[in-house]
Amino acid sequence: MRFYSDNTATAAPEILAAIAEANQGNTIAYGDDPWTQRLDEVLGKFFGTQVRAFAVATGTAANSLSLAALSPPWGAIYAHAEAHIGVDECGAPQFFTGGAQLVSLLGENAKLTPSVLGAAIDKHPANVHTVQPAVVSMTQATELGTVYRPEEIAAISRLAHERGLAVQMDGARFANALAFLDCHPGDVTWRAGVDVLSFGATKNGALAAEAVVFFDRGRVRDFEFRRKRAGHLISKSRFIAAQLLAYVETGVWQRNARRANAFAQRIGSAAGKTLMHPVEANEVFVRLGEERKSALRTAGFGFYDWGPARSGEARFVASWDQREEDVAALCRALGE
Amino acid sequence: MRFYSDNTATAAPEILAAIAEANQGNTIAYGDDPWTQRLDEVLGKFFGTQVRAFAVATGTAANSLSLAALSPPWGAIYAHAEAHIGVDECGAPQFFTGGAQLVSLLGENAKLTPSVLGAAIDKHPANVHTVQPAVVSMTQATELGTVYRPEEIAAISRLAHERGLAVQMDGARFANALAFLDCHPGDVTWRAGVDVLSFGATKNGALAAEAVVFFDRGRVRDFEFRRKRAGHLISKSRFIAAQLLAYVETGVWQRNARRANAFAQRIGSAAGKTLMHPVEANEVFVRLGEERKSALRTAGFGFYDWGPARSGEARFVASWDQREEDVAALCRALGE
Amino acid sequence: MRFYSDNTATAAPEILAAIAEANQGNTIAYGDDPWTQRLDEVLGKFFGTQVRAFAVATGTAANSLSLAALSPPWGAIYAHAEAHIGVDECGAPQFFTGGAQLVSLLGENAKLTPSVLGAAIDKHPANVHTVQPAVVSMTQATELGTVYRPEEIAAISRLAHERGLAVQMDGARFANALAFLDCHPGDVTWRAGVDVLSFGATKNGALAAEAVVFFDRGRVRDFEFRRKRAGHLISKSRFIAAQLLAYVETGVWQRNARRANAFAQRIGSAAGKTLMHPVEANEVFVRLGEERKSALRTAGFGFYDWGPARSGEARFVASWDQREEDVAALCRALGE
Amino acid sequence: MRFYSDNTATAAPEILAAIAEANQGNTIAYGDDPWTQRLDEVLGKFFGTQVRAFAVATGTAANSLSLAALSPPWGAIYAHAEAHIGVDECGAPQFFTGGAQLVSLLGENAKLTPSVLGAAIDKHPANVHTVQPAVVSMTQATELGTVYRPEEIAAISRLAHERGLAVQMDGARFANALAFLDCHPGDVTWRAGVDVLSFGATKNGALAAEAVVFFDRGRVRDFEFRRKRAGHLISKSRFIAAQLLAYVETGVWQRNARRANAFAQRIGSAAGKTLMHPVEANEVFVRLGEERKSALRTAGFGFYDWGPARSGEARFVASWDQREEDVAALCRALGE
Repeated sequence: MRFYSDNTATAAPEILAAIAEANQGNTIAYGDDPWTQRLDEVLGKFFGTQVRAFAVATGTAANSLSLAALSPPWGAIYAHAEAHIGVDECGAPQFFTGGAQLVSLLGENAKLTPSVLGAAIDKHPANVHTVQPAVVSMTQATELGTVYRPEEIAAISRLAHERGLAVQMDGARFANALAFLDCHPGDVTWRAGVDVLSFGATKNGALAAEAVVFFDRGRVRDFEFRRKRAGHLISKSRFIAAQLLAYVETGVWQRNARRANAFAQRIGSAAGKTLMHPVEANEVFVRLGEERKSALRTAGFGFYDWGPARSGEARFVASWDQREEDVAALCRALGE
Repeated sequence: MRFYSDNTATAAPEILAAIAEANQGNTIAYGDDPWTQRLDEVLGKFFGTQVRAFAVATGTAANSLSLAALSPPWGAIYAHAEAHIGVDECGAPQFFTGGAQLVSLLGENAKLTPSVLGAAIDKHPANVHTVQPAVVSMTQATELGTVYRPEEIAAISRLAHERGLAVQMDGARFANALAFLDCHPGDVTWRAGVDVLSFGATKNGALAAEAVVFFDRGRVRDFEFRRKRAGHLISKSRFIAAQLLAYVETGVWQRNARRANAFAQRIGSAAGKTLMHPVEANEVFVRLGEERKSALRTAGFGFYDWGPARSGEARFVASWDQREEDVAALCRALGE
Repeated sequence: MRFYSDNTATAAPEILAAIAEANQGNTIAYGDDPWTQRLDEVLGKFFGTQVRAFAVATGTAANSLSLAALSPPWGAIYAHAEAHIGVDECGAPQFFTGGAQLVSLLGENAKLTPSVLGAAIDKHPANVHTVQPAVVSMTQATELGTVYRPEEIAAISRLAHERGLAVQMDGARFANALAFLDCHPGDVTWRAGVDVLSFGATKNGALAAEAVVFFDRGRVRDFEFRRKRAGHLISKSRFIAAQLLAYVETGVWQRNARRANAFAQRIGSAAGKTLMHPVEANEVFVRLGEERKSALRTAGFGFYDWGPARSGEARFVASWDQREEDVAALCRALGE
Repeated sequence: MRFYSDNTATAAPEILAAIAEANQGNTIAYGDDPWTQRLDEVLGKFFGTQVRAFAVATGTAANSLSLAALSPPWGAIYAHAEAHIGVDECGAPQFFTGGAQLVSLLGENAKLTPSVLGAAIDKHPANVHTVQPAVVSMTQATELGTVYRPEEIAAISRLAHERGLAVQMDGARFANALAFLDCHPGDVTWRAGVDVLSFGATKNGALAAEAVVFFDRGRVRDFEFRRKRAGHLISKSRFIAAQLLAYVETGVWQRNARRANAFAQRIGSAAGKTLMHPVEANEVFVRLGEERKSALRTAGFGFYDWGPARSGEARFVASWDQREEDVAALCRALGE
């Protein structure tokens, strides 16, 4: 019974069907095919505004390529200390940007706040001695399973734009955040000031497909050169694009996200007082103690340790394809 | 009737079936799944020696990551002037290596020779003023559709190793070369001195799957950090690995390559005296003149111009899934 | 009356004399001259052990090149939040390393401690998802004018080596630290576990000369390629080497550092309760309030603001060539 | 009797005097001093147009930083196969640009021509698959001691600008070229379309000083961040600036260059039929045979081999401070 990560999940049938359907006849390569050509329109409709969207195969690529489009090599990229770009990508943003400096910020529930961001920007005045403020990156849903509200994002974006920064969003679990908020996709992106979004589909049912979505189309500039040069322009692009189209157009993004979130809610409720953070998306963080963790593992539950060694903390991630009975079993075990 | 590139082809049914089969139940992510774990064994068996194999989604990634594993930032990478790594990857090898210098060499039929390579290495003596000889890269089949013989590869590898260089092979069309030579996969790789191979599957029937195969396992070193950091570690790795396993284990690599090669032979024969290079793999280069090219396009044939502007040259690529009747039509048109 | 920085100082007569003396006749370029060739021996004698020493013209180059010799592109470099490498070098360490990640640590008086370092290393376990612990960098004297004691350095180095990290020291004001401690140069470097030192001379009397000193000579490896490639191999190398030789051999390092430190002591005493940190090297940090700062400036004293805007903090740096009467005037003004 | 390189020469008395004169009192660091502040004006006057000029300590830095200001990481930089940037800088341009591709071109006397350049640009069409034409770099005087005429430069610049490229000039021996041509400095730079010049002084009498001169001031953009980040912003900047000011204002650039050129003319005349290229600046290339080279070395002449091993070729460089009698002795020896 695996609760390690939503990356352990299968691909959704809607996605595989779309790939099979795209597998008809020869078509032009490297993104000039009809599937890829529809991305802007379909994602634009989804978000309610004109966009430029680019398909890539991994979330690390989506984040790093978008950050590289927004930050010079001497830029500062501000993100929460828990952010995937700083913690889990082996320095990919530095590689893609040519050496930008990640600045780790603190904040409750893995969220940034304007005051913390503002103080950090102040440390990088406009002279050649220090890296220059370039991007603020938010994660939606956050690495602790919490979700930024539209007004929280807007407040950060406003400050960022006033200070000349671009706003990037790591949306590896964007659908889960959206399902929780039950708002329009535009409300937590362009209407709240987000310039570029890494729109993740893989964790929520795709095989391997993420979109870099530019709401500020003026920032696209050299993106396509960067993508090609990083080996992230897929030759048979139709197969990545078809996944993204199906993800949005069949509504599987929402069905899957709702299902995973609902599982997480149940697990969170079962966890009771051991719960460390509000459960909003599809992740649950609990402080169980090492003994209970061992017992759960003996009972067949797979999950990752969290926090410092022997802190007794654990993370449970609910995937869209989790079996009902596994979740029920986990809830029982946690509730005991 | 598209003869632009084998990248325009569909994915083979064997590949899609393997993906569907891998889509059962949760499995560990990022390469610790049973499919990915079998790559070393299955590719080792295919090549007849122990290997370390890593799955990535694009050929540019496979080439650039392998070159970065073999060359320091101040290295020289020697390749033919027609090589994909120098001509068609937007500088990816330079990006991944941290700025290695590509050295373009000449040679008939897009092949390197020991004498040309030796003279080039001589220009980079062992001092800090010049880049240092690091890698020779051969393309098999070459960019002009020709195929290195085992002894040609061995002669180059011997020289390279004597001079302290590593040997990398860009095998984007490796299966086509192998089908032409009808030899053991080991004969044109490790037995001929190749240290690392970019083993392509995408052009020949996969959806998006290439393997970086280390025959010299001592050179793997930091490869996995480089791959992750470049965004090329696929989270649901099983779906890439499953393609590669099926590609080798079902024999689709050979069936498809033979079919494409046979088409190319027919097109080459039809081309007659307009043929520019021997047809050995699945590409055909002809000097038709601009008028005949126009006429062919009007007649519904799609293909790329080749060579300098208005040189009258054209490239036709036969894909594994090309329709019999399209090939026949092209042959008729060329033969007229 | 300038108390901005020791970079505003003149070059010492001993240094200019050495340059003039080296300016005799033709000599081989790029470091094969007799002056450069003596660096290892002379610095080895100074430090009491065998070293490999390389001359460069700036402290940023010395720090970045040494860090690049010690950290892979996916390395983590741990340093205090105040460290010059993170705050004042416009991301140079990231540029030279190919994108290593700087990790900012806290600690009183701008010093690292083993416990803080250990906790930070724990956050980077040995897997491909995160950057890998590579280097700890200490600044001696620190950016707040304090000085690590030999046992403090040794404790950090011990932990670093146990955990597989290299130990780099930014010694832009190394002479000032040494003059304060009045210990042997080896006591705060190789005997305390330092692997590589940026040995600064410019701030303390040279024209433009710093040495990268490898105590662990096994780590030199590719250093010379990195230096050349970064444009930091000086063609007329004798003129940089001659500065370093004179700096050490004439004892000017000590005379100048003692003089600057003594000035700082007097300024620190005059500052009384406004003093923010112990005065150990040649820098004095005071909390004066904005009004007093204005008054001092009106009275002709030049110095930098410190800390957050309108914090009322100021930094005074005493240079070796500061005029006696200017220091006296500053002391009077601070004492009022 | 050393004829290895003009890098083996001493610093001119005018330069040392200027350093001593600049060594008066404290001054602001990092380029805000009065000496550095005069660079634009003094170099602007020299070139007869408004410029932005930046001091650095090495020619490799000057070239690489200027190329990085002109080329994106995916840019193509076109230069002659003999160019210092491709042959003698250990890949520095690739490091500073973040991986641009150097394209080696052929041409008599180490000079580029519009037709060769045009054909090379044609190979890099405007799509993401290939590097994008960014810069053409000319060396004045060339690596073979020849000198571009104003109209030769203008023809290349015209083509470059028509095709959207910037024009950079490596002027490590610019003064020697100018002395040969006896024209206005503007005639072979901005009036002939050069956008950025590496204006060398070190080889011709400075201690360590080169200027990056932007004639197209709109291209300066991020130059200062790049310089700082590469460790090439000198803290005591006045000492580099003072060299450059003296170099231009005292006329030492011309006196020294004329002297070195005159020596080279004499050596070239003495070489007679062994001469390989016209002697225009201060370098002489001869084909002597291995035996005569040995004999010369036995007789006490120091010089570098040239060309392929055992080609019998040699290079003699005349420095500004060469002793009259050494040159006479060499001429006698060559004339025998």
